[in-house]
Formats: sequence, C-alpha cells, structure tokens
Amino acid sequence: MQLLVVDMQKGLFTRDTPRHDAEGVIRRINRLIASVRKGGGRIIYIRHDGPQGDPLAPGTPGWEFVDELDFHPDEILIRKKACDAFAHTPLLDTIKESGDTRIIITGCATDFCVDTTVRSAAGKDIEVWVAGDAHTTADRPHLNAKDIITHHNWSWKNLILYQGKIRVAKTEDLIKDIET
Amino acid sequence: MQLLVVDMQKGLFTRDTPRHDAEGVIRRINRLIASVRKGGGRIIYIRHDGPQGDPLAPGTPGWEFVDELDFHPDEILIRKKACDAFAHTPLLDTIKESGDTRIIITGCATDFCVDTTVRSAAGKDIEVWVAGDAHTTADRPHLNAKDIITHHNWSWKNLILYQGKIRVAKTEDLIKDIET
Repeated sequence: MQLLVVDMQKGLFTRDTPRHDAEGVIRRINRLIASVRKGGGRIIYIRHDGPQGDPLAPGTPGWEFVDELDFHPDEILIRKKACDAFAHTPLLDTIKESGDTRIIITGCATDFCVDTTVRSAAGKDIEVWVAGDAHTTADRPHLNAKDIITHHNWSWKNLILYQGKIRVAKTEDLIKDIET
Repeated sequence: MQLLVVDMQKGLFTRDTPRHDAEGVIRRINRLIASVRKGGGRIIYIRHDGPQGDPLAPGTPGWEFVDELDFHPDEILIRKKACDAFAHTPLLDTIKESGDTRIIITGCATDFCVDTTVRSAAGKDIEVWVAGDAHTTADRPHLNAKDIITHHNWSWKNLILYQGKIRVAKTEDLIKDIET
C-alpha cells in the first residue's frame, strides 16, 4: 500500500484560505502516514511548484509543507506543476516500481489537485482508496467546503472505472485494513 | 476544432433520471454540432457500453442516442466502458490524428463522465473548451443538479494545468469563436 499526500503546503493553509477542519485532516493524514509506514508501505509526498510570485513558488515559505505534517525527508517527494499529479511527473513509474499499485489519496484541495489526481489514477488502472475525511478544501463563492467534500466523496465512490471501483472510507476504517 | 458529445444516450434521459434542463442542453449541443460541422471540424460521439443488465448495455434501447440529438452515423463514434473517455479507447489518437488538438466537451453527466473526461483531456495537454451550458446531470442525494453544474464549471475554469487554462463559456460565445 502506498499513501499519496497531496499539496499539504503552507501557502494553501494561510489565514486567508481557511480549509475545512484543517487540524483534523492533518491529524488523520499523520495517522495514515504512521500506519502505512508500520505496514511497510511507502509515503509519496506531492508538492506543487507554483509560478514566480505564487504562494506556492519554490523556495518561498508557502512552498514548505505545513509544520504539523509528519514528513520525513528521506521518503519519496514528487514535484508537480499541474493539478494532475501524474502530468509531466514520474508518479506513475514511482507507483508501479513498488510492485503494489494500490494507493490511498489524501491532501488538498478536494476539488482541484485531489479530485484530478483521484480520477487520473483511476483512469490508469491503479486501485484507488480515498480517505474521505483526510482531504480538504475552502468555501467557494457558490458552495461551502463541507458540501464540496461530500460531493466529491460521493462522486468518486460512484465513478465507473474500466475495472473495480474507487473505495472511499474513513481514515479509521482504512487503517484497520492496512494493519490487518 | 473538434466537438466531443459524451453519453447522450436514452438510458441516461429517462423519467426516472431527470436531467437539469435536458431539452436546452440537447438544443445547445445540436447548435454546436452544426457550428463545428460548418467550420470543417469533426464531431466525436462518445457512447458508454454498460455491462449486461445495465440501462446502457449495448444493443438495448437505453444504449441508443436520444432521438433529438443531431447524430450523423458517418461521423466518429467511440465506445467506452469507464467515465474517462480516454481509458482503453482510441480517443487520444483520434483527436491527435486531426492535427488540431483543441476540443469542446459537452454531454452527460457533469459530475461523472464529463468531469472525468475534461480533467483527463487537460492532463494530456489537449486544449479544452467546455460549453458550460451544454452538459447536465441529475439531482444527487446531497446537492441539486444546478449547484453541481455551477461547481464543476467553476472548478474546471480554475484548474491548474501544465500549460494554459480550460475555457468554460456559454455555447453562444463558443459558437462566435468557432465561426470567425
């Protein structure tokens, strides 16, 4: 089992961009990190490289992972420039080289990089689990963050894939299956 | 310019699955079909093959395109088995062979096959336009169809791509640019 931690960067968790239940989401991602490490799986951190002047521009404070994230610098780090973490990155090869193409997806933002990466992975015949309570977004002009999270969790669960289904479950339920 | 018409099949437009403004959406797709044909572009119809017993199972009435759709059987038809119209289909080669990798995406359903195909195309460096008023879905347990359509149009417009942006605009505005 491999765990993807998408864009948990300071520039996405500022006072100006409050994320739904950020503290709880980070706590649950850390729970999954610990569990996957314990089970001998790998953690793949995805980091977004914004353009110059962007809150996620490389080298700026916003580009760093949030302090509370239990990131180990000796684990796998993949840098991307698009919402789709597979676009122009070695992510697919990295996942495949482990011989276990099952991944759990977590991170930020639900409606952008998380959703796009979930759908992109599923389209590549990777077995995708989503920790439904370990990804987050912000209120949008047209919908609040909680409804957006509910909508994406529901959509992923019902997506038609070439084979199998995306599993969307709570962190605690996934951990039970990782550790048994 | 190439136009993708996704899953406009009878099995998705029954009395049991009312789609938001179905009549208006079909009318606008037909407007785009006429406009792209006139401009010398190609229409690519995507048809979902459901499993046996499914409302979209091949050969069943639900598998047929809706009667009102201005489908020409001598145009391009691509069959798929997943929400992502690129998964295990020749769609990418078909788009590329034209030499013009710009596509307009329309069809059903906004949150499943349309969204997944929009994000998948954008991840493949295709220039994507979406006719924001020519795709539709149904009310879901957690959100109504209109809010879902608004949310996906907004998300696509703001998606970060490796290059460029997805253009989301009204049918009439796209037609002006196709025809000039």
